[in-house]
Order: sequence, then C-alpha cells, then structure tokens
Amino acid sequence: MARIALDAMGGDFAPTAPVGGALLALAELGPEHRIQLIGREAEIEAAIDAALNGEHAALASHRGRLDIVDAPDVIGMADKPTAVMRRPSSSMAIGLRRHAEGLADAFLSAGNTGAQMAASVQLLGLHAGLKRPAIGTIFPTALQTVVVLDSGANVDCSPEELVHFARLGLVYAEDIMGRTNPAIGLLSIGEEPEKGNAVVKAAHQLLAQSSLHFLGNVEGRDVAAGRCDRGPFDVVICDGFTGNVILKFYEGLAPILITMIAKSMGADPKEMMQGLAHLDYSNYGGAPLLGVKGVSIIAHGSSSPRAIKNAVNVAVRAAESGMSEHIGRRLAVAASAA
Amino acid sequence: MARIALDAMGGDFAPTAPVGGALLALAELGPEHRIQLIGREAEIEAAIDAALNGEHAALASHRGRLDIVDAPDVIGMADKPTAVMRRPSSSMAIGLRRHAEGLADAFLSAGNTGAQMAASVQLLGLHAGLKRPAIGTIFPTALQTVVVLDSGANVDCSPEELVHFARLGLVYAEDIMGRTNPAIGLLSIGEEPEKGNAVVKAAHQLLAQSSLHFLGNVEGRDVAAGRCDRGPFDVVICDGFTGNVILKFYEGLAPILITMIAKSMGADPKEMMQGLAHLDYSNYGGAPLLGVKGVSIIAHGSSSPRAIKNAVNVAVRAAESGMSEHIGRRLAVAASAA
Repeated sequence: MARIALDAMGGDFAPTAPVGGALLALAELGPEHRIQLIGREAEIEAAIDAALNGEHAALASHRGRLDIVDAPDVIGMADKPTAVMRRPSSSMAIGLRRHAEGLADAFLSAGNTGAQMAASVQLLGLHAGLKRPAIGTIFPTALQTVVVLDSGANVDCSPEELVHFARLGLVYAEDIMGRTNPAIGLLSIGEEPEKGNAVVKAAHQLLAQSSLHFLGNVEGRDVAAGRCDRGPFDVVICDGFTGNVILKFYEGLAPILITMIAKSMGADPKEMMQGLAHLDYSNYGGAPLLGVKGVSIIAHGSSSPRAIKNAVNVAVRAAESGMSEHIGRRLAVAASAA
Repeated sequence: MARIALDAMGGDFAPTAPVGGALLALAELGPEHRIQLIGREAEIEAAIDAALNGEHAALASHRGRLDIVDAPDVIGMADKPTAVMRRPSSSMAIGLRRHAEGLADAFLSAGNTGAQMAASVQLLGLHAGLKRPAIGTIFPTALQTVVVLDSGANVDCSPEELVHFARLGLVYAEDIMGRTNPAIGLLSIGEEPEKGNAVVKAAHQLLAQSSLHFLGNVEGRDVAAGRCDRGPFDVVICDGFTGNVILKFYEGLAPILITMIAKSMGADPKEMMQGLAHLDYSNYGGAPLLGVKGVSIIAHGSSSPRAIKNAVNVAVRAAESGMSEHIGRRLAVAASAA
C-alpha cells in the first residue's frame, strides 16, 4: 500500500497533466494505492471533472482513490530554491510535510526542481554522510536502461561525492530497476584509470579500492550502448554538470534524429516517434532525489499525463521497496568500513 | 596551392585508408594541390598499387600528385604522447617536421592523437597566450553544423582558457565553415548566467565583458538543435572533458538510434544510414588542433578513405585561408586590449 502525495500545481500543464496522470496511474496500480492531489482545491476539482467528462471518462471508477488536499499557494518556476520554506501553504511545502509526517509515503512534483530539492532536504533530511542529494535519471540504451547520476543537483563534485553517487545508484538499480549486483561505470574520456579530469581520476582510485562492483571508466559511446568492453553496466557516475549536459543533449537529439530520419524517408515523424516509445523520455518520467530520508520524485516540467503516471509508478516502487532505508543502511555500512 | 603531409601509417586501416583517401581527395581538389604520403615507402607503394588495381582504378590519373616520403618508424596507438620527440624517424615526426620547415602546408594523421598533439606543440609551437591547443569538432545539428571545442585536449580548464577557446572557435567558424560574425555559446546547464559549475560561471562573466558575439549559455538540447532561444550559434565552448563525453555520446548514439529505428520499421540499418549521410561523422572527418602555429589535423582512428578525404579538405581550407595566422592575430589583439 502506498499513498502518493502528488503536486497538482507543478509543471507546464498543471493541474490537467497531474490529474490525468493520477487517474492513469490508479487504473494500473492495485486498489490499495491512493493518490493525494495537493493544490488549489477548486482548480483540482474542475480538472478532475474535465478529465472524467473528457478523455479519461473510462477511468471514473478510480475517482474514489483520489484525495484532494487544499494548498492555496503555488511555487512558480522562477521562484528561488528557498521559496518553499518561506511559503508553508504552497503545494510543495504541504505535500512534502505530509510525507515527512507520515501522512503520505512519497512526494512527486513536476514543478520547480531547485525548490523541490531544497525543500526535500529541509523537510525530509539527508542520510548521514551526504552534503546534497543526487538526481538519478534513466537513460534508454541499445542494451537496457541505465541510471545516470548525478544529472543536475551537484555541479561541482569531490571524488568522495562521486563514490556516494555510486552507492545511491546501486540501491536505485536494485530497488527500482530490479537489477542484481549492479555494475557501476565512471563516466570519463578513456577507459584507462589515468584518463579523465582531476576529480574523476581520484574517484576512480576510490571506487577501485571499494567493495562496489566497479567496471572502471566508461566513455560517452558506452553510455549510448549500455556496455563497455568489460561488459554491460547499470549505473553511470558523473558530476551533475556533465550528467545534466548529456541528459539534455539526449533529450534534444533523439527527437531531432527521428525527425530527420522520418523526413529523409518521407514518413510522418509523429508516427515514427510513437513506434519508438522505448526511446521516449516520458516512458521514464520520474527521477528520484537520491539521498533524502524519504521519497521525493522529480518529474520533467513538460510532463504529459503518461509521464506523470510513470513517475507515480517510480514513487510507488521507491516507497514499497524501502529504497531510502536501503540507502541509509548502505551509507552507514560504507562509513563504518572506512 | 597546398601541399598536405599525410601520415600514411596512422589509423586502424593504414596505409589503405590514407592512400585511398589521398586519391579521392586529389580527384576533387584542383590540380595545383599535392599530397605527401609519409611512412614506410614499400608499404605505401604496395597500397597505391592495390588501390589503383582495385576499387580506385578510376583515379590513376591523380597518382602523379602523390609524393612518397619514407619514414621507417611508426608511432603506435599505445605509445606515450612523448614518443614522437624520441623517435625522429617516425611518420608523425617527419610529417610534422616537414610542415614546420615549410616543405608542407599542413599535417594530417589518423594515428595516436595524444602523440600528435604533443609533437605538434613541440615542433610547430603555440601562439602567444596559449598553454595548450584545443580540438575543434564539427557537430551536425538540426539547423546547421556547429564547432564544439575543446573536445578532448584540455580536461581541466580555467575560465580564461574557455575564453581562448571562443577566439579559436571563432576563427575556425570563419575560415573553415565560412560563417560571418560567428555566434558563440557557452555550454552549461541553464541559460541564466548564474547556472553552471564554478569555471563556467566565471567564464560567462569574462565572455559577456568581451567583444565577442556571445549568445550566453547554451544547454545540451540546444547543441542538438544548433540554436537556443536567443538564436542560432556557430561555436560551442566547453572544457575538454565535457566536450569529449558529448562527442563520443553523439558518435555512439546516432548509429544506435538509426539501427533501432530501422529495426522497428523492418528496414535495413545500413541503407538507412546511407540516406542520412549528413549525420555521418565521416563526412566531417578532420578536427584541427587549434592554437598551434600551423595546421595539424586530427582524423578519427577508424577513418575510412572518405573520412580521410574530408580531413584533407579541412587541411587544405585551413592552409589556404591562413587560419593559424588569423588565430595568432586575434589572440594578439585580445591580449593588447586586456
């Protein structure tokens, strides 16, 4: 049983997309799961009515598992990361507080990522040993999906932080992706340990000495392939600057390549894109903020109802698997071994 | 008139690919251009005979503009960057020396990049103000090609070095790509000046105060698109770590996406790839080592004859346009203005 607190006011298409995504998610999830829509009550009710009288009419039977929690204030995309703490009646503050108080098992938003991150750290806390959480993003590859972290929360990282990311990603791969003994690659510019920038070279040494299943350095082309010469991997470690650049590059490049290919063949790009759903980011919507004590899931600002549905699924899996507790235990074991 | 010194022993398919590429290039270039094949004389002659008796038989009339310069030693891919200076009879040492002595107008190799870079700096020298050269790589985008630098020569960069890259890329865009008043973007993780890691934020300030046509920060998705909200750009600036990661990611991702798309449509991936030649790296083969006093062109180790041909074209354009002199002048003007 999981109760997901969903920020109904977050994202470019709020509250329509969160409400639609919630209905789609409930239709897939078992009857024991509930979703709490956090936001302006009247707007949420209007969006539910519109959905059930419109394209989601077939989902009316799931309405009973939608709860509405009124939150009169909304954090905008231009607000500062610190805004949530100063505005306790915002949907983000109320949703995260409910999770912190045990009234919800996870929080999910497609709103202001910086604000969600800062408020998640403040209201949920961080596991011991961490300075900041990391964002783990799923990349589709030629072979299987891999989780890349950090993909934007930590721009300047120490070697020790990169090792923390390896432990966070390992638990993500086990609990959310269902991998056994996940293999970890360190993003660099050559497979040899001495290739990379100063931080990456130092992190390589630390990872090689750790008990982690470390495959060594992986290069940009390996990330696209999902494997390097030493085998497939599940987790790719990098600083948040590099991770964010390649994430957005991937997001940008895939549709552009598909459009170019479709045009060169006289095909319809939209149809072709539908046939390539496994490359579509909205299938992987929902990146957990790894390292916080709890479950805080970041969805893309442009999330569609389907992307929100998938992010709800990630939230449910994270809550039910006990991902946050597993992360806490891993970090504690590593700290006591050091 | 340009005389290109081509390392006949460099790359995975040497000497076949360099010899084939030289013949293809001469067939396209005006009769005043010549290519000097540097390497083991007997092997080069055998490769020329094989080419002219085989798939390049139609190019026999261009044989007269191929010169052979014997070089008994070959730098391998596993050799250290310093190897060239210790092995003066290697094809790389002889080719670069010929260029330094004015017996050739450019040098080109698909061999050991690190060795070529170190030897180019030693034998050709660097323009005043530079600590290291940068590698400028062409990225195909949705809109037009852009040059991304540095793509691997400088892994840890200062803000001042990123500004140097802007000046180097500007001249590249003018002289090789034929752009007027090239627009420069700084690769970051958000368009606001305060987004990025410490080095990028400082570089943003320097670029904004410079006389360069600086468009501000561009994100990963903008690189794929060839434009940001403030318009299209010609040059993307980043440190060599990030540049190398996205270059290899692109190289890996494009064929994987095309293969996936072809499979999903029941089409032949090879045929589809041929129809998408503008996405094929070998069309852009040949990345200049920007900042050296002269023309030293790096080709991919896996270069095909066609890739070598395109790299020869880049070498000719760099030599004929006076790119290196233009870079020297730009840097001198900037230094005197500072």
